[in-house]
Amino acid sequence: MRAVDIIMDKRLGKELSREAISFLINGYVVGNIPDYQVAAWAMAVCLNGMTPAETAALTETMLASGTRINLNGIEGPFVDKHSTGGVGDKTSLILAPLAAAIGVRDPMMAGRALGHTGGTLDKLDAIPGYRTQLTVAEFRTTLASTGFAITGQTKDIVPADRLLYALRDVTATVESVPLITASILSKKAAEGADALVLDVKYGSGAFMKDPLEGETLARSLVDTGAAMGKRIIVLLTDMNEPLGNMVGNFLEVEECLDCLEDFSKTPPDLAEVTLELAARMAVLGGKVANADDGRVLCAETLASGKPLSLFLKNVADQGGNVKQLCAMRGAYRSPFVASVRAAQDAYIARIDAWKTGHAAVILGVGRNRASDTVSPLAGVQLHKKGRDMVHKGDLLMTVWGKDEAALATAIPQLEAAIEYAPTPPAKRTLVLKELVHA
Amino acid sequence: MRAVDIIMDKRLGKELSREAISFLINGYVVGNIPDYQVAAWAMAVCLNGMTPAETAALTETMLASGTRINLNGIEGPFVDKHSTGGVGDKTSLILAPLAAAIGVRDPMMAGRALGHTGGTLDKLDAIPGYRTQLTVAEFRTTLASTGFAITGQTKDIVPADRLLYALRDVTATVESVPLITASILSKKAAEGADALVLDVKYGSGAFMKDPLEGETLARSLVDTGAAMGKRIIVLLTDMNEPLGNMVGNFLEVEECLDCLEDFSKTPPDLAEVTLELAARMAVLGGKVANADDGRVLCAETLASGKPLSLFLKNVADQGGNVKQLCAMRGAYRSPFVASVRAAQDAYIARIDAWKTGHAAVILGVGRNRASDTVSPLAGVQLHKKGRDMVHKGDLLMTVWGKDEAALATAIPQLEAAIEYAPTPPAKRTLVLKELVHA
Repeated sequence: MRAVDIIMDKRLGKELSREAISFLINGYVVGNIPDYQVAAWAMAVCLNGMTPAETAALTETMLASGTRINLNGIEGPFVDKHSTGGVGDKTSLILAPLAAAIGVRDPMMAGRALGHTGGTLDKLDAIPGYRTQLTVAEFRTTLASTGFAITGQTKDIVPADRLLYALRDVTATVESVPLITASILSKKAAEGADALVLDVKYGSGAFMKDPLEGETLARSLVDTGAAMGKRIIVLLTDMNEPLGNMVGNFLEVEECLDCLEDFSKTPPDLAEVTLELAARMAVLGGKVANADDGRVLCAETLASGKPLSLFLKNVADQGGNVKQLCAMRGAYRSPFVASVRAAQDAYIARIDAWKTGHAAVILGVGRNRASDTVSPLAGVQLHKKGRDMVHKGDLLMTVWGKDEAALATAIPQLEAAIEYAPTPPAKRTLVLKELVHA
Repeated sequence: MRAVDIIMDKRLGKELSREAISFLINGYVVGNIPDYQVAAWAMAVCLNGMTPAETAALTETMLASGTRINLNGIEGPFVDKHSTGGVGDKTSLILAPLAAAIGVRDPMMAGRALGHTGGTLDKLDAIPGYRTQLTVAEFRTTLASTGFAITGQTKDIVPADRLLYALRDVTATVESVPLITASILSKKAAEGADALVLDVKYGSGAFMKDPLEGETLARSLVDTGAAMGKRIIVLLTDMNEPLGNMVGNFLEVEECLDCLEDFSKTPPDLAEVTLELAARMAVLGGKVANADDGRVLCAETLASGKPLSLFLKNVADQGGNVKQLCAMRGAYRSPFVASVRAAQDAYIARIDAWKTGHAAVILGVGRNRASDTVSPLAGVQLHKKGRDMVHKGDLLMTVWGKDEAALATAIPQLEAAIEYAPTPPAKRTLVLKELVHA
């Protein structure tokens, strides 16, 4: 078997055998196949696609390239949630303690911010003392005691994905449905969850701009999961506007604490998407028969206050200082602060998610390169969102930058993110589709 | 400007600017842009193509990556012929002295055998003492004194092509019309010819199997040549059967000597393709008004014997031993010899060029890898070709191998190359199309 023949077959649009895919990926991981051959293959995959069987073979080969978290001896069910990434998307921090509170355990391996989308680990890093890199033993202990644990990917989990992702990033081969599918599912399979709820986002603030593209990815995830024997529910959700009112690292932790403390005050879009995802975790965890019952159970559980106490227990479990965290609420802000006010009397059509996310990166929330550092204090608070009526001069955003220059650069971009309308815009449908293999 | 954005644009099917192409290729040559980025780009070019403007920009960028042969002070006109490669294709060795004899000078930079196709330099290496790697000074002297000179590409001629070709070879990105066009035309422009005759071959023994593919390449070569201000004539010729009766290194030198000595005895297919190409060299060199007059002039010139004497003069110019060469004719053969005989009473439909070329590589004529060595003595003599009537047991081929094992492996493949027909097959059209920018 030769790598060049495998590349040629994919170039000609042929279906690759499991053996060919395994030869290429394993050869790459051990260093027998050079990056330029894998780069040419990845481009051929981007342009010619992969069949469901190929995507499943790729996912399984990638999964087998490293170790899997062993959850033996801990009581399940284990259900995780994964999002394809958005702006202001902090649902993981609400969902994990909520799932735990209803008896569904969440072994969460989370990522960092890249590009205009936020990352769960960067948010948690804003909590003093919180450790986002656990050993497998610590991960198991925390999961068993609190019902969820959150950690970054370790070096020996799916090394093929780490290599391949770094190569795709510099060869313009990121946006490929089969490659994204294999990347997500191989990592999620490695963390030991029995079932997965996937939040595939579409819209300006998502990687997939178009709902049809998003649906293609959603379908690929469900089909590939099915081929691997995983139970999966995918929700296709709108990411044209930031989710909730806070975009930032500590700001989003704070918004999650607020939600867990009094869910009735949660911004409606964040509340809806969170409850819809939580209901599916309840279904896959076998706690309810359907999503309707799941919503009721999750809403009652949130009202009980148990998810909040589990969140705080997890903070303590993972080394965070709960007392200090509570003291920081509403106070831990950058001194470089500014306001954005309404330019006219009008309705807000939407606050564009991509532009807000891009401005947030400038403020210090995210990173352009994996090596960039982020600021825990930077961010944006949205006082108004789509469908709100505003008068000229009303406060629309409070903005915190890592420094004065960042603030100055970001403000005009945030102003440009505000879309006005003369009449009330239509209500957005937040959950467009549900795809199930359960 | 970033390489990843250029790759993305080509992935999305956009037209790249001259600046973008130049940034990528020059960055690659100086080592600023890594091979994996160029590999991904090359695959995107293979699958999404290039516009004529992009192909011209690529060709000119590649040309500018190295030095050009300076022919100042030598009297022209300079016209070269280039073939896309075939089996038994030895026309260069007849055309160069023939062109010189009519006053058209041929500064020929030739290549080596690769895959199933032969290479002019390997054929010339079979002549004792002949030097195929001349200095620029030697190349100029020989060209001025004899009217033609033949040399391999030097290191400083189009380094971008050398790098790119090596990368394409291992990333399954060879078969791309714009990349092939830029590779051919950048090298031909660097050698200093004013005008070019290109023999684009199609059929089983060519890189382009299909005449339509061949025509696409022919059109790209003419259009790109036109954009660069080069006069070009392309003939699209049939390569379904080896050209002439000899396939091998010394065997083909010998067949050329035979042709130059008595053109009336030249196998008809070789004679026709040679005269058609020669007539176009005469046209582009300004010696005749049209191809009809060119054929007459070239046939008369061949009959005069002048091309033969120029061929022998060139052998002496480039260090070859003319006396020894003449003594070797008909005698310089491998001791590992066998015959292939007719399996039935029938007509020969054709001797398949690809299978013959592939068997020839096994015999020792060509190479699978650039590092393989070739045998000067190995080869095949075809005693019968397409449309000949044969009786069972008739001698069809004499076969010489580099060793006994090669012979044993090649014989069944040569037998498989013989296609029989119960009735006389139709005459092949050897020159299918002519495309002109003159």
